[in-house]
Amino acid sequence: MALPEPSRIPGGLAQPAGRVYNFNGGPAALPLPVLEEAAAELLNWRGTGMSILENSHRDKKVVAMALEAEDDLKSLLRLGEDWKVLFLQGGASLQFAMIPMNFAPDGLPCDYVNTGMWSDKAYKEARLVGADARLAASSEDDGFTYIPDSFSFRLASRYVYLTSNNTVRGTQWKAFPSRPPAPLVADMSSDFLSRPLDLTDFALVHAGAQKNVAPAGLTIVLVRKDFALNGKKGLPHLLDYRTYIDSDSMYNTPPVFCIYVAGLVFKWLKAQGGLDRVCLRNEAKAKRLYDAIDSSGGFYRGTAREDSRSLMNVTYRLPSPELEKKFLEEGKAQGLCGLGGHRSVGGVRASIYNAVPDAGVDALIAFMKDFQAANG
Amino acid sequence: MALPEPSRIPGGLAQPAGRVYNFNGGPAALPLPVLEEAAAELLNWRGTGMSILENSHRDKKVVAMALEAEDDLKSLLRLGEDWKVLFLQGGASLQFAMIPMNFAPDGLPCDYVNTGMWSDKAYKEARLVGADARLAASSEDDGFTYIPDSFSFRLASRYVYLTSNNTVRGTQWKAFPSRPPAPLVADMSSDFLSRPLDLTDFALVHAGAQKNVAPAGLTIVLVRKDFALNGKKGLPHLLDYRTYIDSDSMYNTPPVFCIYVAGLVFKWLKAQGGLDRVCLRNEAKAKRLYDAIDSSGGFYRGTAREDSRSLMNVTYRLPSPELEKKFLEEGKAQGLCGLGGHRSVGGVRASIYNAVPDAGVDALIAFMKDFQAANG
Repeated sequence: MALPEPSRIPGGLAQPAGRVYNFNGGPAALPLPVLEEAAAELLNWRGTGMSILENSHRDKKVVAMALEAEDDLKSLLRLGEDWKVLFLQGGASLQFAMIPMNFAPDGLPCDYVNTGMWSDKAYKEARLVGADARLAASSEDDGFTYIPDSFSFRLASRYVYLTSNNTVRGTQWKAFPSRPPAPLVADMSSDFLSRPLDLTDFALVHAGAQKNVAPAGLTIVLVRKDFALNGKKGLPHLLDYRTYIDSDSMYNTPPVFCIYVAGLVFKWLKAQGGLDRVCLRNEAKAKRLYDAIDSSGGFYRGTAREDSRSLMNVTYRLPSPELEKKFLEEGKAQGLCGLGGHRSVGGVRASIYNAVPDAGVDALIAFMKDFQAANG
Repeated sequence: MALPEPSRIPGGLAQPAGRVYNFNGGPAALPLPVLEEAAAELLNWRGTGMSILENSHRDKKVVAMALEAEDDLKSLLRLGEDWKVLFLQGGASLQFAMIPMNFAPDGLPCDYVNTGMWSDKAYKEARLVGADARLAASSEDDGFTYIPDSFSFRLASRYVYLTSNNTVRGTQWKAFPSRPPAPLVADMSSDFLSRPLDLTDFALVHAGAQKNVAPAGLTIVLVRKDFALNGKKGLPHLLDYRTYIDSDSMYNTPPVFCIYVAGLVFKWLKAQGGLDRVCLRNEAKAKRLYDAIDSSGGFYRGTAREDSRSLMNVTYRLPSPELEKKFLEEGKAQGLCGLGGHRSVGGVRASIYNAVPDAGVDALIAFMKDFQAANG
């Protein structure tokens, strides 16, 4: 079936340029105004006569752009001077190794909370690099459908690691462990900048940009300077956070284009009134979608426990794998794309990151009702 | 002074969209048709209804695009089945650590040829990670103005490391060491795909894409599979070449946009008739520029020894730092940008990568003549 005219997408507003609604888990939807600005100046960036893809990272305008992105991010998160924003590469997977190499080297203890695939990978990588990593809690006993609320932390632990939002299982921490025995370190890849953050108990946050911030290829790290400065010495330069702190993330050539797009997204978020407002919109979007699931009389079944439901990744099942397949195919034909669950679990996953418009969620809900009426 | 109308750039052809001639050392010029194609489909990539910045790396079209880029690169380089193309992140600086960690671990010997800043960094990083790295040759005795031609290799060495083109000093290997005692490993960041390559004696080549291939954020690695498979086991996943080999570079989210642009550049190179033809054009461009330097009666002085001159980075001086400053300023005002030498050495550097058009080189030569006439 061909894509319908944009105006025919059920419940949706007209979308320009034949664009669909994008529910990808990541890489994921970016704000349309950001994409339009990037496309418009791709041949000639801000009067330099060359593309941002061709500008030197040592050019004054590029350096200023990167510093402005850092400032805008600090302002969005209300970060104090004790924090530093870093722009890295390698994604969460490289952070899984760098964090224990820097902060639990030579067999030092660190505690992990396992809430699904990504925290499990982080835990295993910490053990691989020789840290004394232990699980302080896990929700594996119930298929990772919830966020644990009791923990066996060790007093000697150098840090406590958690994954704030679980893209695969559709769960999200609502409140982080209170009075942890060590600073919290978190992978926030899939809910970064979706809500305000109180970083009082944290020492490091990392986020692959490809969910809520920018194209794939950029990893944002927030780190408390005193924590970073006390890391292991003598590591390879690119695996030592101090290298990035000392050079404003320009020790070597950074992923300039990703930083540029991230900067545009930060301005887009500021223009919406900041993270409090963004969070309200995300809560409203998620509530409408979960309500549609819960009011379907069991045709749609959410996979996460109600108190642990993610505002970013709404995961649910239909009565049979056959109906799920049909749902995904018909949805795609109607311009509702990227709704397949993670390849490790199947089912349906609607990722409704910051850049997924209200109209996209409404179009999905309308389609769900139509589909149930025809197949329920 | 404002930028002149494109048609007024001396000796140059009219450039669209107010674009300048870009002589950056890297990130550097990309082919205009590639930029135009990327801009044109930035909102809707190949009928997917979403940007390439928003497409999942697991999407069939994206996977096919990445595999096609790999195939096109193998075809350009005439690589056999014993080689694998990898798409990584972290730039040459991460390769500096990964190579010894994989191939000279636990104090094993490896030999380095030091031809300037980048090979020196590679050598020092190898020592930092515990390899028994030694210098087999160095051109430091004469300010890195030449490529050495005698080497004290050790028979037990696991690999011999060199930098094929020295961006800072404007030197380039014309012939690689013959009958080396161990496989050659080379950083070819700044002359990758500028000439055909005979990889008979090589085991690994790495190249930051931001010179001749794509935007910053992508590191291309060519590796002989048997060499990679015999690397150190138990390294962090993202530091082990096998991780990328086993997953076709999709163990985690790769820098999709950079791979996409690289793929467009590979097709652009193929359309020109491949690397033999590209090399002929590069030789002609460089010859015209070096001839202009050599025929200036000493006003312009090349910094590299004649037998070691780079086809990619043409480095030269003027009679005084004041004249150099004036030259760079007036050049920039005429739309000849990025001509400053590397911040560690100063002077003038015209980087004339594949994407710098003949007309750009001619415009630079015309400007050099005018400038000498007015200031000589």
